[in-house]
Amino acid sequence: MKFGRFEQQGRVFYGAVEGDQVTELEGSIFDNYKTTSKKQPLSALKTLIPCVPPTFYCAGLNYAAHVEWANKRKGTNTKLPEKADVGYRANNALVATGEAIVIPADSPGPVQFEGELVAVIGKRARNLSEKDALSCVLGYTLGNDVSERTWQKQDRTLWRAKNSDTFKPMGPFIATGLDPMKLTVTIKVNGTTAAEYDTGKMLFSAQRYISEISKYMTLWPGDVIWLGTDGATEPDLKDGDTVEVIQKDIGTLRNPVVRAKA
Amino acid sequence: MKFGRFEQQGRVFYGAVEGDQVTELEGSIFDNYKTTSKKQPLSALKTLIPCVPPTFYCAGLNYAAHVEWANKRKGTNTKLPEKADVGYRANNALVATGEAIVIPADSPGPVQFEGELVAVIGKRARNLSEKDALSCVLGYTLGNDVSERTWQKQDRTLWRAKNSDTFKPMGPFIATGLDPMKLTVTIKVNGTTAAEYDTGKMLFSAQRYISEISKYMTLWPGDVIWLGTDGATEPDLKDGDTVEVIQKDIGTLRNPVVRAKA
Repeated sequence: MKFGRFEQQGRVFYGAVEGDQVTELEGSIFDNYKTTSKKQPLSALKTLIPCVPPTFYCAGLNYAAHVEWANKRKGTNTKLPEKADVGYRANNALVATGEAIVIPADSPGPVQFEGELVAVIGKRARNLSEKDALSCVLGYTLGNDVSERTWQKQDRTLWRAKNSDTFKPMGPFIATGLDPMKLTVTIKVNGTTAAEYDTGKMLFSAQRYISEISKYMTLWPGDVIWLGTDGATEPDLKDGDTVEVIQKDIGTLRNPVVRAKA
Repeated sequence: MKFGRFEQQGRVFYGAVEGDQVTELEGSIFDNYKTTSKKQPLSALKTLIPCVPPTFYCAGLNYAAHVEWANKRKGTNTKLPEKADVGYRANNALVATGEAIVIPADSPGPVQFEGELVAVIGKRARNLSEKDALSCVLGYTLGNDVSERTWQKQDRTLWRAKNSDTFKPMGPFIATGLDPMKLTVTIKVNGTTAAEYDTGKMLFSAQRYISEISKYMTLWPGDVIWLGTDGATEPDLKDGDTVEVIQKDIGTLRNPVVRAKA
């Protein structure tokens, strides 16, 4: 099943997506909802981010080949993480599929994509074992952890490097019933495949991250956990590009790139 | 004026606080609200956190004496930040005045308070100059940036050191009309003053932080910016303690401390 969040003439609602058709749902997918008889073509609706997370978790480094590539490319010496210590991103930066990634006018660059699998929490959870961890997950969506590499290197925190407005495209839909460790994520820039990886190569599984987080934190419906990216994140993004993060069951998160005028 | 958020028999509402009396408001303090004629004693209501932030910003290091103390106490060599780079905290950790700070059973400790002034954003804002920065602020509340120092030192991120459930007491109320750079914040442990500082000693002013953030990020109503703490953060917190963060116009954020059973 695939859930989306939509807007039509100022009205916001959840829908079940089948091919090009959306069946309107009454209520929230994080609560008791009802299926209605209203069906519309997807093209008649504006697709929104699939949820507004109470807490926005992000694994950061979670694939060996990405860390190795980054060290080579940036002359850094980042070690592989030894524990599933999670980080955070910020809601102000979230945009939906179709919305522009805006590179700030004063960005020295490069600005790069990081296509990620995202677990969407469906049920309040605390102290889950790895075995039970996925029981709190509603489904999976995609994220693009857009990163300004100069700021990432120079600033004391990742605030503007990772959280400038529009730097966190998320969507298009939430797909249920997937095995998060057996998916292929593809990133295309201007229609050409730039990166492709299997989620089975995560250093720490989705199960592990959820279990670790839930030892100290209550996970809430709508929380999202971005699970990291693998490999190189080139070519650099520039004004006029289109970047896509693709997983066949979830769909395509597609965003144009523009550069803000000074 | 002082705003609070309250619960009574499952109903949640905002109120205007005068002394021990609460006048119920209709609607949100972040939108158009109406004052009603319903008055109740504060003691009849459960005080909630004053808002649930869309984004939870935190200045981190923002007072020289705190950095110097921490370096001496912990044998670190943290430099004073050169720029107002903001960080983040997580909503799962928020608790209201009166609710317990729960030290996780496996915490090696020490666990310490950090009493902070908190700016609460009232209006959507982008690209504010320092001169205009406070125009987007609704008012000020207090926060306790409770910190597990071993985890803060050892983990790759601040996830559990700063964001374990209950580690972010915030409240009790939002006071309007204050000058954020001319306040005295007092922290008491078990009724004895443990720390006291003037907000005028911030390395980067509230105005500067807001202006810097707004260059890259849209600030939204309900966002909070925790502005850092000064000086020592001892004595360490232990089971049975009560910790208070006090500013005379805002009120007292008071939380008992308990240690979770293994």
